[in-house]
Amino acid sequence: MKTLLRNGIIVNVFTEQLEKADILIDGDKIIGVGDYSDENADIVENLDGLFVCPGFIDSHIHIESTMLLPYELSKLSVRHGTVAVLADPHEIANVCGTDGIKYMLAASDGIPLKVFIMLPSCVPATPFDEAGAILQSDDLLPFYKHRRVLGLGEMMNYPGVVEGVQSVLKKIKDAHNSYRVVDGHAPLLSGHALDKYISEGINSDHECTSFEEAKEKISKGQYILVREGTAAKNLKSLLPCFDKPYSERCCLCTDDRNAADLLLEGHVDNVVRKAVSLGKSPITAIKMASYNAASYLGLHDMGAIAPGRKADILVLSDLKSIRIKDVYINGTKYLDNDQLVNFSEPSVPVRLNKAVHKTVHLDEIHEENFFIKPDSPRCRVIHIIPGQILTEEMIAEIDWQKNNGINLDADILKLAVIERHKKTGHIGLGFINGIGLKHGAVASTVSHDNHNLIVVGTNERDMAVASNAIIEMGGGNVFASGGEVIGKFPLPVAGLMSESSAEDVAAMNKQLKILLYDAGVPENVAPLMNMAFVSLTVIPSLKMSTHGLVDVNSQKLVSLYI
Amino acid sequence: MKTLLRNGIIVNVFTEQLEKADILIDGDKIIGVGDYSDENADIVENLDGLFVCPGFIDSHIHIESTMLLPYELSKLSVRHGTVAVLADPHEIANVCGTDGIKYMLAASDGIPLKVFIMLPSCVPATPFDEAGAILQSDDLLPFYKHRRVLGLGEMMNYPGVVEGVQSVLKKIKDAHNSYRVVDGHAPLLSGHALDKYISEGINSDHECTSFEEAKEKISKGQYILVREGTAAKNLKSLLPCFDKPYSERCCLCTDDRNAADLLLEGHVDNVVRKAVSLGKSPITAIKMASYNAASYLGLHDMGAIAPGRKADILVLSDLKSIRIKDVYINGTKYLDNDQLVNFSEPSVPVRLNKAVHKTVHLDEIHEENFFIKPDSPRCRVIHIIPGQILTEEMIAEIDWQKNNGINLDADILKLAVIERHKKTGHIGLGFINGIGLKHGAVASTVSHDNHNLIVVGTNERDMAVASNAIIEMGGGNVFASGGEVIGKFPLPVAGLMSESSAEDVAAMNKQLKILLYDAGVPENVAPLMNMAFVSLTVIPSLKMSTHGLVDVNSQKLVSLYI
Repeated sequence: MKTLLRNGIIVNVFTEQLEKADILIDGDKIIGVGDYSDENADIVENLDGLFVCPGFIDSHIHIESTMLLPYELSKLSVRHGTVAVLADPHEIANVCGTDGIKYMLAASDGIPLKVFIMLPSCVPATPFDEAGAILQSDDLLPFYKHRRVLGLGEMMNYPGVVEGVQSVLKKIKDAHNSYRVVDGHAPLLSGHALDKYISEGINSDHECTSFEEAKEKISKGQYILVREGTAAKNLKSLLPCFDKPYSERCCLCTDDRNAADLLLEGHVDNVVRKAVSLGKSPITAIKMASYNAASYLGLHDMGAIAPGRKADILVLSDLKSIRIKDVYINGTKYLDNDQLVNFSEPSVPVRLNKAVHKTVHLDEIHEENFFIKPDSPRCRVIHIIPGQILTEEMIAEIDWQKNNGINLDADILKLAVIERHKKTGHIGLGFINGIGLKHGAVASTVSHDNHNLIVVGTNERDMAVASNAIIEMGGGNVFASGGEVIGKFPLPVAGLMSESSAEDVAAMNKQLKILLYDAGVPENVAPLMNMAFVSLTVIPSLKMSTHGLVDVNSQKLVSLYI
Repeated sequence: MKTLLRNGIIVNVFTEQLEKADILIDGDKIIGVGDYSDENADIVENLDGLFVCPGFIDSHIHIESTMLLPYELSKLSVRHGTVAVLADPHEIANVCGTDGIKYMLAASDGIPLKVFIMLPSCVPATPFDEAGAILQSDDLLPFYKHRRVLGLGEMMNYPGVVEGVQSVLKKIKDAHNSYRVVDGHAPLLSGHALDKYISEGINSDHECTSFEEAKEKISKGQYILVREGTAAKNLKSLLPCFDKPYSERCCLCTDDRNAADLLLEGHVDNVVRKAVSLGKSPITAIKMASYNAASYLGLHDMGAIAPGRKADILVLSDLKSIRIKDVYINGTKYLDNDQLVNFSEPSVPVRLNKAVHKTVHLDEIHEENFFIKPDSPRCRVIHIIPGQILTEEMIAEIDWQKNNGINLDADILKLAVIERHKKTGHIGLGFINGIGLKHGAVASTVSHDNHNLIVVGTNERDMAVASNAIIEMGGGNVFASGGEVIGKFPLPVAGLMSESSAEDVAAMNKQLKILLYDAGVPENVAPLMNMAFVSLTVIPSLKMSTHGLVDVNSQKLVSLYI
């Protein structure tokens, strides 16, 4: 079937000029750009001078961070002109292993949004992490046969790369031998260490927070994926990346952006819009959002309005507001004058669907599980820094006689990280400062990167109630107080994702947050987000594992007691 | 083993800036760029502020056109800073089929120059061609397993692509499915036909003769390989291709450049030098000659002085004369202060070596083989246009009673194209105007693209003598006169390539040409080159096949007689 889009003003990413032309589409691809006024197409649309550009590509995203299934995300993303995402299913892989990757492939098969997969390179993130799986190179290798698998996801284990750990290097080599790329993750790495890291075949970085950092990485041959997520916003600092020749080696990404932000601000279109509002060329920003990402990822039949390219086409009102009117993906219209059309849900094999549900493997939790054996009164406490995922070590005097050491006045709450994948019974116990709860307890299975069950409470009873509610609903977030569940936000898929719409997810998340703020959490703290990084033992300084406290800088377990 | 190149001024193709730095090499790759003054390397060279740039890549070449074996070519190319060539062994494949491709792979295995192969897409070039082989997609497909095979060579059969001939499209699809690119060849193709051609997956073009043509092809997503060969010189017309954003999608190539030109003028360095002398930025020209070609061809570990890239490094005196002092390929120095070092000859399996030798399969030729049955006095004669590979149809009055129709005063010489691969006995006979010989006959097995035996003579006896000399030496060029061989230039490999050095090849070629000019060939005619295109039935207008005359425009055999 042929579709003819007449009289558009095309953003040509090759000539970087605007070009008045017709676009002829046959099936899923563009077969002509120019004067096709004589063509007898099955569908003819007159664009009457509207702007037309290639569909946007999010060059690095964790879908799990949206808490949406790929299909629900696609409804949101397509509305905002995203035609493809490079998803690293790192979170679900930490819970479900290769089944998690297979599930994400299945759950995104045939949906309008093209979901390409970058294989999780670091599962678990560190040896401290008791995750649901350990993925070795042999586990990943077979996935390269899949056409939608485009590479190895962010290689966070830069010490492993720099030190030449063979099992790490093997994963990188497998990707390159399979004609795929390797995403990097090396915040602030520079000089000789950066050289070594890149030498081993790391092709990109999305962690740059200054232009100097980006420039060094570009000069050494990495692609820079300029990130503008919910927490990490790097666009403004990286504005010179939108100028030549740097722009030639830069793409756009969101990494972690939650459903509320996607609803409110948009997706890649929002990043383009911001760059334009800050004075950058819309043609350059669009090129980075489409062609550059396609080039980096080897998607040579995408990223441009040109013959032979997939018909991934956006119709825009103008090049400033980047308001998206129509979206075509592989030649099919999925957004028609701001209305979603032609969407149909994917089907997932029963076995895979089962594998990602009921993933909280724990027996009933009792308040005794949270008791800590009193010892020295001087203890290490994890101190939350508002708005950051970094934590600090705080030394506090614990009064073991009173509330088992919990001290609401000093904001010393109890913290537990409970292994929830293999019923090992491991539980890391300690104290946390900065969450600010005055009553009740909050529990969550979103706990990077191992996604064990993390619980913070003002008393052990509510901690047990919240934990058991989580176990019962198969993962998610719960606030309990006075021995009752007060609010819950179920995340039945791997304890990470909802099966609801973006609107519902944003609403549920918001409701739970309101309850937590009402219970005393200070306004400048994002309680669930902050908690989610308390067990991530790659971010300094003091974190909690299922084996107890970890000093991140020395990468050693440390005692609660001093 | 580590090599340290200290204090170079590096052409950084990413930042497009000059950068004073050390380069640290480990084995075949660069592992550091920056201040490595503390490094204890095995070899330390102080570059004292000399310029350093990535090695040059010839993005499209037919090695057979140099008449040199890959090893002999490498001595010349490396001296001129070429570290890699994309060779389409189209000529030898027309003679020896897949064995020809295998031979070129073997004969270039382990030589300093990296010889990458683009598989010949059109063997034979047309259905008129009685070549030594017919290569179908199934013949080509297994070659994609080879790491040095980077794609499908120039798809000259653009009517086949545009008309959607399945066997043609299959070859293109196989390349893309194997993560490889497809080179195009579509001179002057434009508009809807170009759209259709590109739509089927043709990624580049090296036939552009005007910037308008290049710009259209760039705007439609093709890479442009700016060509500067011996006959076809397009650099000057394509100068705007050296400006942004066009330069981002352009590479440099020589296509067909003979040994004499390579000796005298150079290789890719000559193209860079010319661009600079015409006012273009040396950094841009170097980037096009290295990084762009690597990007186009998926050689993501080449084309830049950066960590992780192969150590393909040129040390230059300056950025204007582009005089090359040292050349490193994969970390080994092959040019040291203008002297070749570390060269060693490749070994070729006996079977393959045998397959490409003694390829002139003909029994002894007699003068009667050249007799034409007299008929109408008005005949079609092929008219050579000096300096062009185009020919014209000329109508001439043939006096059959005198010299069997040969007329030296009117420069009507006898022409024969003899099938030499399969002993079919087919011979195309006719007349040719413009060669200008006053005595003797010239014969050659370099006869595009089928490389049958082509003979032009002032008498049948010398035509037979020349032909038999060719048969005896297994291919090459011969001039015979007065019943004796006067000069010969053996090309024992497939009748296309010499086993001698570039110097000897250039000398032999020159000597033979002097003999031909002495025998009457006008100065503005390149006799061997012009003859070599007389049987190429894709170039207008009148050509000679082994079945007789071909009218190229109508793609039909036509009678000698009117």
